[in-house]
Amino acid sequence: MKASFFKYINTLQDQITTALENLDGSVKFIEDQWSRPEGGGGKTRVIQNGTVFEKGGVNISGVHGPLPKSMQDYFGVGEAQFYACGLSLVLHPKNPMVPTTHANFRYFELYDAQGNIQDQWFGGGLDLTPYYLFDEDAQHFHQVCKTACDQHDPSFYTTYKERCDTYFWNSHRGEARGIGGLFFDYLRPNTEKTAQQWYDFTTGIGDVFLDAYLPIVERRKNLEYNASHRDWQEIRRGRYVEFNLIHDKGTLFGLKTNGRIESILMSLPPKVQWAYDHQPRLNSQEARLIDVLKNPRNWI
Amino acid sequence: MKASFFKYINTLQDQITTALENLDGSVKFIEDQWSRPEGGGGKTRVIQNGTVFEKGGVNISGVHGPLPKSMQDYFGVGEAQFYACGLSLVLHPKNPMVPTTHANFRYFELYDAQGNIQDQWFGGGLDLTPYYLFDEDAQHFHQVCKTACDQHDPSFYTTYKERCDTYFWNSHRGEARGIGGLFFDYLRPNTEKTAQQWYDFTTGIGDVFLDAYLPIVERRKNLEYNASHRDWQEIRRGRYVEFNLIHDKGTLFGLKTNGRIESILMSLPPKVQWAYDHQPRLNSQEARLIDVLKNPRNWI
Repeated sequence: MKASFFKYINTLQDQITTALENLDGSVKFIEDQWSRPEGGGGKTRVIQNGTVFEKGGVNISGVHGPLPKSMQDYFGVGEAQFYACGLSLVLHPKNPMVPTTHANFRYFELYDAQGNIQDQWFGGGLDLTPYYLFDEDAQHFHQVCKTACDQHDPSFYTTYKERCDTYFWNSHRGEARGIGGLFFDYLRPNTEKTAQQWYDFTTGIGDVFLDAYLPIVERRKNLEYNASHRDWQEIRRGRYVEFNLIHDKGTLFGLKTNGRIESILMSLPPKVQWAYDHQPRLNSQEARLIDVLKNPRNWI
Repeated sequence: MKASFFKYINTLQDQITTALENLDGSVKFIEDQWSRPEGGGGKTRVIQNGTVFEKGGVNISGVHGPLPKSMQDYFGVGEAQFYACGLSLVLHPKNPMVPTTHANFRYFELYDAQGNIQDQWFGGGLDLTPYYLFDEDAQHFHQVCKTACDQHDPSFYTTYKERCDTYFWNSHRGEARGIGGLFFDYLRPNTEKTAQQWYDFTTGIGDVFLDAYLPIVERRKNLEYNASHRDWQEIRRGRYVEFNLIHDKGTLFGLKTNGRIESILMSLPPKVQWAYDHQPRLNSQEARLIDVLKNPRNWI
């Protein structure tokens, strides 16, 4: 299972970075390979200062060894060996009319003293963070998510869409980070699904990431924008930073377990603003976005 | 004691904002008064887009009521009434040759069921975050700190200088936020100092903030700079954001205890950049700064 999923994320990284390079047209991803002293490593691919993508990363990693103390405490287990691999991506487009996106697909194994699998689970999801909200983009993104979920279980879309809204919640602002998508975690073999079925589900969602996101980029990347649109984008990116550094378990986890800092923090946007008590104009596009973020919506 | 310290921070806020307005010359602080539903409130004063100061805040608050659950856990106490007041300031200058500064002076009281003071302490400090390091500025700042400390106890400067280096440590980067200053907390009446002596010390440090910082601003505010200096400043401001959102107890505390978000996050810089794996040129001024931040120095 782990070899199979690791191969999957390697192939997915290639597919996604190739598609994004073709779409951008002007710059390529640079790749940094790194290894972890305790076991394993990763391939970080970063794109910067493109025509379409101002900054983005599509990273994979596969790490193993003794479970770090902080993760023992987090999972409520004692000393154990573990294996974890995953793909994680964040794309920050230049044009404020194009939304930021994030996706993650991961697999985890915990072993007993004999080296047998004691626990295993899949996790992941994808979500969209617009600066200017086009309803048809949100609907498209969620429809692709729903169609992919429905092939595995009729309850999945509703369940994981709600988990996404709950997880990506900037509680100190009382608003969502974006307009959501899917978020799932601890997908363990149980009476209803086998590990293989969770594998099929997780990779099934990975397979539709480009279908969910690329048509939106194509539609919006040539729209005109001015300095005021850009200011708004940079102010909203500040909220993205706030979520990732204050609330995101993945980010804080990486920082606490001696992860590769530059690979973890590649998620942070390239240019960001914080203005004191910024308020959008009444009835503006900007105010409408905030309203939707404060009251997550059903898009299907 | 609390009335006296609250009056002190009110006067200090006036002194500091007046001095900064005079120095800036082009813009004034705006003031927002706010009240806290559970008891108390504050006066937030913010300056933005000035000639010298791109963004800054000099805030005071005095709050009281039942100790929030998260603070009970933090202090290791049960239900109690509390009073807390303090002044907190952060200044982000426009010119990258002028350092950012932060200062805080606070007083806390906890009461037993009869309303008697059960515990009380002072805390605070001031620190400097340069983007381009002028040794004479660091020496001046620390000398003012030391001279003020020495009037109260010959051990204070060394003790609280070290605590500052320890506290403002971006552990995930292995570097200090800036070149330090003073940091002290839980200054309780004990066999060596009375509450009045800690009051005198804390206000003594508050009194020298302008002496420590203003001469540096005067010396550097008209130095020339180019876009590349400015990029470096914005990248370093990213580290400031990382510290405040990941590590700073005051910020996280405020966010968890339903503090006024805009007053807490006024500390975040106006314009910030994150570039993937940015490395300064060998032997450059930028590289020298990093070296000093990785190995905090004695400036006296």
